[in-house]
Amino acid sequence: MRSAIRNGKVVGEDQAVLPVACREVQYSFSVYEALRIVGGHIVHLEDHLRRLHASCRDISLGHPFSDAMIESSLKDLIEADGISDASARILIVGGPSPLFFITYTELLSYPESFYSEGVAVSLYRGERFLPQAKTSNLLMQYIALEEAKRKGCFEALLVNRRGMVLEGTRSNFYGISGKRLYTAPDELVLSGITRISVLRAAVELGYEVSFVPPTLANLHMFDALFISSTSMGAMPVAAVDGRAMKHDAWPAVSQICSLERKWE
Amino acid sequence: MRSAIRNGKVVGEDQAVLPVACREVQYSFSVYEALRIVGGHIVHLEDHLRRLHASCRDISLGHPFSDAMIESSLKDLIEADGISDASARILIVGGPSPLFFITYTELLSYPESFYSEGVAVSLYRGERFLPQAKTSNLLMQYIALEEAKRKGCFEALLVNRRGMVLEGTRSNFYGISGKRLYTAPDELVLSGITRISVLRAAVELGYEVSFVPPTLANLHMFDALFISSTSMGAMPVAAVDGRAMKHDAWPAVSQICSLERKWE
Repeated sequence: MRSAIRNGKVVGEDQAVLPVACREVQYSFSVYEALRIVGGHIVHLEDHLRRLHASCRDISLGHPFSDAMIESSLKDLIEADGISDASARILIVGGPSPLFFITYTELLSYPESFYSEGVAVSLYRGERFLPQAKTSNLLMQYIALEEAKRKGCFEALLVNRRGMVLEGTRSNFYGISGKRLYTAPDELVLSGITRISVLRAAVELGYEVSFVPPTLANLHMFDALFISSTSMGAMPVAAVDGRAMKHDAWPAVSQICSLERKWE
Repeated sequence: MRSAIRNGKVVGEDQAVLPVACREVQYSFSVYEALRIVGGHIVHLEDHLRRLHASCRDISLGHPFSDAMIESSLKDLIEADGISDASARILIVGGPSPLFFITYTELLSYPESFYSEGVAVSLYRGERFLPQAKTSNLLMQYIALEEAKRKGCFEALLVNRRGMVLEGTRSNFYGISGKRLYTAPDELVLSGITRISVLRAAVELGYEVSFVPPTLANLHMFDALFISSTSMGAMPVAAVDGRAMKHDAWPAVSQICSLERKWE
């Protein structure tokens, strides 16, 4: 059995459990981070810890688990199971008796064809509550993604009531037009760790960044659309709701992806 | 230790736990019901089972737990702990390995003064995702209620972007004006079991029901405002965000409450 962390201690994964009778569990009053461990190295740890703080602040979730404790717990887990590559998940539940867990799975990765041929995505009308915070209030994302899968799509993009295509259920979203990269403003979407690197890479490659999201009306006019996340890196979007999108700037997506991964 | 139900079996409450590594737990892909046990009798069981089905349907959550199994589990739990009066909670988590729990606490009840003097409530701007479904996607309700408590309030009322005061974080909401009862249309709010009885009681007492919610602009003009829930029955609202509301129709609220409780 895999190990896990519970409140700073290494335990069997079967002990990484949430009490059903706990009010904060019932109300999904919790925040999380998903990170990568590659060759025993915890990728962008400081960024993830910073975002964990931000998520807690956004929902007024207080807890006693320090960055040092979280970091040493991650290292204890890596050592306990001799982990080289993995996708890890930190979960903190708030309330009078806060809980802190780390669990992990095999390193999430995707077929090379997803990058060379792009992926199909679907659209879902819905707006997240507190979009910047990474909380367990994920039902909309679950439903949107299940619907996407039923349609044979890899991801669902969330569309707000003004027709702005803001982000995926587990990814950020971008359009390239000429030498300009378009994406939603920070306050409307999750502050993706990979998003930070993607924007940095785009600037380094000579793109100007406009914090203006693609919309339903102009999606098909971009030279390329792509999504990004910790596990995906940057991945081109080939079709939206069955309609093929332009490929012209796919080489740029690939360049951004390579540069972004270099900084790990 | 209290007992609980896990997938139809009586277990210790410490075994009513959710695996942190389960995707459906992570995404809050679950539905619940909160019900009352009074004198060993399960109040409005059929209504709760019907709503549980409706919640599952709303979010496409399939599970193998039949009504008969849920009912016999409730009876097993009542027998195992010799329960006379309690507030019970049914939880069903979806996904490839669905989970079914029942836990319970002491019967929730409130001081008589809450009914004779009314309660203070605060306002919270926010709209629920899939308002009719009773799911674990409750973060907004948690945050709104915590904010209300910090202000010394008993409940927070959710206000949509059009200024409609739709419902509380754990209650339905109504205004009385003359011989008319105002409340939000079904599709905008949780289909409260007590709401059904409240509307029935109002009609029996000679009120006409208008499915038009009170708004920020007219809250203070109602002869009485009140909230209802399984644990509260019908409870008058004395003040909204610190502003005193009219008392004129409080006797009617009290009559509705008595009649509603009679049908248990």
